[in-house]
Amino acid sequence: MVCVLLVVEKLFVIRHKGKGGENLKLLGDKLKIVTLGGLGEIGKNMMAICYRDDILVVDAGLAFPEEEMLGIDVVIPDISFLLANSAQIRAIVLTHGHEDHIGALPFLLPQINVPVFGTRLTMGLLERKLCDSGLKLPPGSQVVSAGECLTVGDIEVEFFRMNHSIADVVGLAIHTPVGTILHSGDFKFDQTPVDDEISDFGKLAELGDRGVLVLMSDSTNAEKEGYTQSEKVVGRRLLEIISQAEQRVLVATFASNVHRIQQVIEAAGQNGRKVAVIGRNMENTVNVAVELGYINVPENVLVTMDELARLPHRQAVILTTGSQGEPMSGLTRMSLNEHRRVEIVPGDTVIIAANPVPGNEKLVQRTTDNLFRLGASVIYGAESGVHVSGHASREELKLLFNLVRPKYFIPIHGEYRHLVHHAALAQEMGIAPENIFVGENGSVFEFSRDKGAITGKVPAGNVLVDGLGIGDVGNIVLRDRRQLSQDGILIVVVAIDKAGQQLLAGPEIVSRGFVYVRESEELLEEAKQRVRAALDEEADCVAEWSALKSKLRDVLGQYLYERTRRRPMILPIIMEV
Amino acid sequence: MVCVLLVVEKLFVIRHKGKGGENLKLLGDKLKIVTLGGLGEIGKNMMAICYRDDILVVDAGLAFPEEEMLGIDVVIPDISFLLANSAQIRAIVLTHGHEDHIGALPFLLPQINVPVFGTRLTMGLLERKLCDSGLKLPPGSQVVSAGECLTVGDIEVEFFRMNHSIADVVGLAIHTPVGTILHSGDFKFDQTPVDDEISDFGKLAELGDRGVLVLMSDSTNAEKEGYTQSEKVVGRRLLEIISQAEQRVLVATFASNVHRIQQVIEAAGQNGRKVAVIGRNMENTVNVAVELGYINVPENVLVTMDELARLPHRQAVILTTGSQGEPMSGLTRMSLNEHRRVEIVPGDTVIIAANPVPGNEKLVQRTTDNLFRLGASVIYGAESGVHVSGHASREELKLLFNLVRPKYFIPIHGEYRHLVHHAALAQEMGIAPENIFVGENGSVFEFSRDKGAITGKVPAGNVLVDGLGIGDVGNIVLRDRRQLSQDGILIVVVAIDKAGQQLLAGPEIVSRGFVYVRESEELLEEAKQRVRAALDEEADCVAEWSALKSKLRDVLGQYLYERTRRRPMILPIIMEV
Repeated sequence: MVCVLLVVEKLFVIRHKGKGGENLKLLGDKLKIVTLGGLGEIGKNMMAICYRDDILVVDAGLAFPEEEMLGIDVVIPDISFLLANSAQIRAIVLTHGHEDHIGALPFLLPQINVPVFGTRLTMGLLERKLCDSGLKLPPGSQVVSAGECLTVGDIEVEFFRMNHSIADVVGLAIHTPVGTILHSGDFKFDQTPVDDEISDFGKLAELGDRGVLVLMSDSTNAEKEGYTQSEKVVGRRLLEIISQAEQRVLVATFASNVHRIQQVIEAAGQNGRKVAVIGRNMENTVNVAVELGYINVPENVLVTMDELARLPHRQAVILTTGSQGEPMSGLTRMSLNEHRRVEIVPGDTVIIAANPVPGNEKLVQRTTDNLFRLGASVIYGAESGVHVSGHASREELKLLFNLVRPKYFIPIHGEYRHLVHHAALAQEMGIAPENIFVGENGSVFEFSRDKGAITGKVPAGNVLVDGLGIGDVGNIVLRDRRQLSQDGILIVVVAIDKAGQQLLAGPEIVSRGFVYVRESEELLEEAKQRVRAALDEEADCVAEWSALKSKLRDVLGQYLYERTRRRPMILPIIMEV
Repeated sequence: MVCVLLVVEKLFVIRHKGKGGENLKLLGDKLKIVTLGGLGEIGKNMMAICYRDDILVVDAGLAFPEEEMLGIDVVIPDISFLLANSAQIRAIVLTHGHEDHIGALPFLLPQINVPVFGTRLTMGLLERKLCDSGLKLPPGSQVVSAGECLTVGDIEVEFFRMNHSIADVVGLAIHTPVGTILHSGDFKFDQTPVDDEISDFGKLAELGDRGVLVLMSDSTNAEKEGYTQSEKVVGRRLLEIISQAEQRVLVATFASNVHRIQQVIEAAGQNGRKVAVIGRNMENTVNVAVELGYINVPENVLVTMDELARLPHRQAVILTTGSQGEPMSGLTRMSLNEHRRVEIVPGDTVIIAANPVPGNEKLVQRTTDNLFRLGASVIYGAESGVHVSGHASREELKLLFNLVRPKYFIPIHGEYRHLVHHAALAQEMGIAPENIFVGENGSVFEFSRDKGAITGKVPAGNVLVDGLGIGDVGNIVLRDRRQLSQDGILIVVVAIDKAGQQLLAGPEIVSRGFVYVRESEELLEEAKQRVRAALDEEADCVAEWSALKSKLRDVLGQYLYERTRRRPMILPIIMEV
């Protein structure tokens, strides 16, 4: 892989909230599972398996910011626990290559440089990601395959094949002297996977026969009845649509869904069409996946955008990002007629091969509406057959319980309601209620051969990444951003002599995001008068600047609220000349 | 109705974007429909029917702000067209009492004071709303009933019964010398409505027989196959849940859904439970609806919260708002354990009897998760049977086509994709493609007896209401709020002598929402140094303050971006002393 090494960016703050110290030293004879993410909140999946002096980290993902986390780029787990016990951390093992499982590593590895283990595609995607941050895989890191084992002190990790919405996915059987923990990873049971890599039912049954102490299983679809459909169903539907389309076809999907991309390429090839890939993220993934052999491209089907542009529309397929309506993505820009290379025209068929992630519904709908406005025929939504989930529905979850027959159960990977539903399902499946543990991020689960419990909590909040700062944006900065976003800011500056007796310049009033200044001259002029009056009142008795500032804030705040019913942030600045 | 008259708030800006004038004078011999809202965007439904010298306004709704409309309270239609033709406006007729059909009236009536006509519940809710703004119904306003007619110049409006998710809903047959326009309003065909007020199929058939020139019909569910279920289905499910619940039951639903509220009260009564209503909005609606006889309360079933608190939990039902996860609503505060009166405890059953409006999915999910965390059993979501839509699905839309058999068709009330799907359905139903018109807000549709076309456009953008300002918050203010929300602001103040030669005080740097100041002293100190250096360079040649400000912005912007990868708004202020 050609890696253009960027300058390593110097982070200007790194701050994890946990204090470190007393409560974080949890190691000992018992088997402990410390969850740092993915429990009761979607994303940033991460946990630590601790036994005696060895810690094994499973996954290290990021989450995307919630709406109220203004200006935040990504969210990573709080790793105070790991930092406090870093000498014991032996390895990081990865279940698959999605952002919510590997995305925190560029932030984590500079602080905790231990070997990373994952399958070939997972490691390929990780290397590309680290390379973008000027980082490399830690020494000792290694590619592992489904069926292989890794020994870490007294812990042995067995990797076995599972299916999901990305290729080369594994679950983990973590054998310890106390017993075996089975970690499902994110999974579904696809009976006809695109790459013929069927979930390893034999291994699961064998593990079940040998005895599983704790099952940790993906809860994302614990509310969905029945079975999740096979990815091949999407392939058939894509073939049907592409065969019937008379003009150009555009397909937007998740960049990481290599099987879906494979199926688009195949369907195009079967219809004598060429495929061009647009969008940095999509191009990167396709490059890695083709290079490593996870996507097989029939000869001459993949072309550049320039080559595609010379073909008639009936021979063209464009693969792009933007299935979530992300503002800067290919499809969104096309829908607004703002894309540099592609102009949507009547006759185009656009396939949005994804369901909106919660929170993105409105963005996706807006993109769809705009594509319709440009005359495209748009195929989208749950009932159009162009998307299936990557997560197991209730029947598959039941099958896993029956294969594994665990003594203890911890629902993982899901919002809190998913964990609750999965726990109820476990009970239906015959697991004793007292052996089912619904935890939250930070929960410490402790097991001996015949006892299990939630015994503690470690720091596991959200660490917000904004630019080069990790964790410096907290409640105070967010509260300010929130206030600024609602009613803007009004700054009042006065220059006063050192004795506090004489106004030398000002008041100067500047506002942003509060009112349309050109139409509010009278309002702002009156505000200045109020400031002058307040200064006059105080002229004789300025004890402290802070008292004066506070007075100006009150006077202005009250006046502006009366006149506008808005509450801008008011910032008095006094220059002592 | 007791109306506590508030002080009429003086709006500090009213600004509609349309210029007024030449293009807005559309009246004439042809029949024109001018759409000011509700076409291609959900909400703020409003249109004008124009014939010769008469304008009839149908509905005047508001929309709720999109995510990017930071700090905005509500969105109303641009009424430039109406203001330019105000002398011709004869009346406003209302189809029902939802916010997206009546919510703009408190802003509109002070500018266009013409009589308003609507059914008894609609007018009751409107009066309450006007009263909250210190307004009254315009003189000549009148309650009308389904079956009645209103004559406005050459236009006759016939009101007929339809069903929807609120009571006392009507559609409109607007008879003009050119032909009849049938306006469906928001509707569904409920064959077993809670109040036995069945849609007036007879009238629709009669109108169809007499000949309908233009059908305008609700497109919200034009993508949904089959029939929308009856509200009674929800009633049965509510009864089932309330009968089986062993402890307290809380029901959150839309305050305006009086039929659902009726059914909750009945189900409670049948199980020997009492109902308390919490939340200002819900209390207001229930008061109006009970007073006007739209909700029938069995004796002693409705109690105050104080009375309910003295009853055992198994006898209690609480009706509240917050079915959309709105931050300040009853249910949301309960889910966060922050409600003044109600503490959720294990054993509580919470019914969220609504589907999330697009954009609110995440908020509803968060509320649900938090209720589960408190130990409640939560019943929610599309498959739980506690909500049905108020809008017609495809089979009902087809039935309306077959009853009315219009010559021309305009899909209304829906996002753009809904209009496109409804237009395709119209074609399937045998309407000639050239007689189907998909427009957008502002489209002017023109009809003679044998010709129809979209012939023009009037201003119909979003007018943003923020506090007491109508329309003053536009792109510039929103752009500033957006930038402030992302990376905050950094203000640098210097005091300089009038000759521009000497720095008298400062630079003073103040930031908000940018970095956590206590941990960024070095960063801000270095920023000051950069400002000093820039001032030194310019000392000899300060031509204009604006050039100096621009230089400070560049120097600081570049430095801060390098160090933090953030782009705060930078505001240099120079005090000339």
